[in-house]
Amino acid sequence: MIDRTKDVGRLNLKTGTVDMTHGAGGLASVQLIEAVFAKHFTNEWLDVGHDGALLPPIMKPVAVSCDAHVVSPLFFPGGDIGRLAIAGTVNDVSMCGAKPLYITASFILEEGFSLAQLDQIVDSMAKTAQEAGVAIVTGDTKVVEKGLADGVYVVTSGIGEALVDHPIDGRQACAGDAVLISGSMGDHGMAILSCRENMTFETTIESDAAPLNQMVEAVLAAAPNTHVLRDPTRGGLAATLNEIANQSRVGIVLDESAIVVKPEVAAACEFLGLDPLFVANEGKMIVICPKEEALAALAAMKAHSLGKDAAIIGEVFEAGAGTVEMTTLMGGRRMVDWLNSEQLPRIC
Amino acid sequence: MIDRTKDVGRLNLKTGTVDMTHGAGGLASVQLIEAVFAKHFTNEWLDVGHDGALLPPIMKPVAVSCDAHVVSPLFFPGGDIGRLAIAGTVNDVSMCGAKPLYITASFILEEGFSLAQLDQIVDSMAKTAQEAGVAIVTGDTKVVEKGLADGVYVVTSGIGEALVDHPIDGRQACAGDAVLISGSMGDHGMAILSCRENMTFETTIESDAAPLNQMVEAVLAAAPNTHVLRDPTRGGLAATLNEIANQSRVGIVLDESAIVVKPEVAAACEFLGLDPLFVANEGKMIVICPKEEALAALAAMKAHSLGKDAAIIGEVFEAGAGTVEMTTLMGGRRMVDWLNSEQLPRIC
Repeated sequence: MIDRTKDVGRLNLKTGTVDMTHGAGGLASVQLIEAVFAKHFTNEWLDVGHDGALLPPIMKPVAVSCDAHVVSPLFFPGGDIGRLAIAGTVNDVSMCGAKPLYITASFILEEGFSLAQLDQIVDSMAKTAQEAGVAIVTGDTKVVEKGLADGVYVVTSGIGEALVDHPIDGRQACAGDAVLISGSMGDHGMAILSCRENMTFETTIESDAAPLNQMVEAVLAAAPNTHVLRDPTRGGLAATLNEIANQSRVGIVLDESAIVVKPEVAAACEFLGLDPLFVANEGKMIVICPKEEALAALAAMKAHSLGKDAAIIGEVFEAGAGTVEMTTLMGGRRMVDWLNSEQLPRIC
Repeated sequence: MIDRTKDVGRLNLKTGTVDMTHGAGGLASVQLIEAVFAKHFTNEWLDVGHDGALLPPIMKPVAVSCDAHVVSPLFFPGGDIGRLAIAGTVNDVSMCGAKPLYITASFILEEGFSLAQLDQIVDSMAKTAQEAGVAIVTGDTKVVEKGLADGVYVVTSGIGEALVDHPIDGRQACAGDAVLISGSMGDHGMAILSCRENMTFETTIESDAAPLNQMVEAVLAAAPNTHVLRDPTRGGLAATLNEIANQSRVGIVLDESAIVVKPEVAAACEFLGLDPLFVANEGKMIVICPKEEALAALAAMKAHSLGKDAAIIGEVFEAGAGTVEMTTLMGGRRMVDWLNSEQLPRIC
């Protein structure tokens, strides 16, 4: 139990900044933990104040993921690094066909970073964790000298339990399967890039960063024989599907007309010479399931607030193993190539 | 399954450096993962190539920890950031009275960082994981621009299963318990500081960084009613015992003559004006157990290669709740105060 009577007055959450002592394990560290982390994250496990947490047994297969978040800028339309970190890790666990339960969070803070901004990020993490129904059970904070980080890096790992009895991963796609996506492509990446480039459009592009675990549960209830779940993050839909085509040794053919790209995202992509299919998403999921379950999966997604624009966008074939092709709007066919050139750095 | 036939020739592990594309999720990322991480960490879970790992059920209470490692310098006598990261996380899980099973590892790389050094660090992680008998089951890599990290930060989390049926944490110390420590104090912190300050002594100070899980298993077999296990890392023995005294609302009295400090560590501490009891250790454990089990716990530690200098160093009392005192070599008594002032930054 952390002693909550201890004086935490030294921390000024309005104008204060992080200093080297906040990461050195002494009283200043305890004060930071109390005033910022414990305040927002409080739960029965974290409040023990140990270096680790002791949780109930997990009687089903255990899904584990981890992710370092170095997004720049830290705050962007539709989210911030805190929401991104929790949603990203919840989603990675979910894409194993699992229900995320617990999150661990490590912070690498730059000396001089605003405590008010840190407080805002931690608050955003707590809210996103609540939205997803997961608990942040243990954490760690380190501080590095000014200049040796970019404000804050947030590293999360997630633990969950399997929702189904069969493996769900990139190796399981089969010829005849349908390929579905839960919504529009490229929102997160273009929200970040628009910030960086100071681009203004009639409509602000908002990141789609969101926890997908509840939609995953609905999809697996509706389409229990789902073979693959993936969130098309770095490298976008194109890179993710190429990875699956490669891992499953199948060909995937997409129908361009079924893939939704918001007008403002399409405009920003055109301006920067990017293909929205290669741009990161943080609140969308790919579902690959037997054709017979495709409509049920689609309905489950459409019934969820994060899946309103869900669509069946393609099919899996034996031919063309390891490749992704697309029937274009013009009626032709083109390869959706493995991402060879440089991608967008620090998008997540 | 990652396609191991893919050309990874672009990476030059001798003279190459990290560039921004290595963290962007495209082909360069895959090449880095293949040539460095997969090569050293290979196991049945990691080889699936998913964003998460699916592990067997854990039928006992689950212990979880996480730690960000930002130690400077990255390489030091007795270890490196890789050994430190694995040992630190293995130990955090162990100190919950649990057997560590799985590790996740996230890397934040600085653009321009030497691939040869990265390879060496990853190799060191793999070897330490093997020494501890844990598997590195999933990972993530991000790259930030030159100057925005200090070579590499390594963030690990650990998952294990409880070894005993009762809670082992800082709240469980009881009046009458014995306090034991597994060896000499201050080795890790002074190894790091000696590097930084370019101090030379007749004997090089080596970090004690080591995984303690096997010694924990031996101690819990010998002293099954152990109340507290802790590794005195940041803030050293003094800060850790103060935390326990505070969490358990007990007083702790130490016997200075029983606490081992190596001559070279004592000399370095004197030179820098530091108290070795406040200096970090990375391969030592505190055991607090009923007096009747103390000799059995001591024997179990002494029988282990990492516990040769183990000793009973103190006792737990009802009086003086929340404080730590020490009977000094001069025969007096002094308070071992809660760490108020600044501690050593970036020691781990």
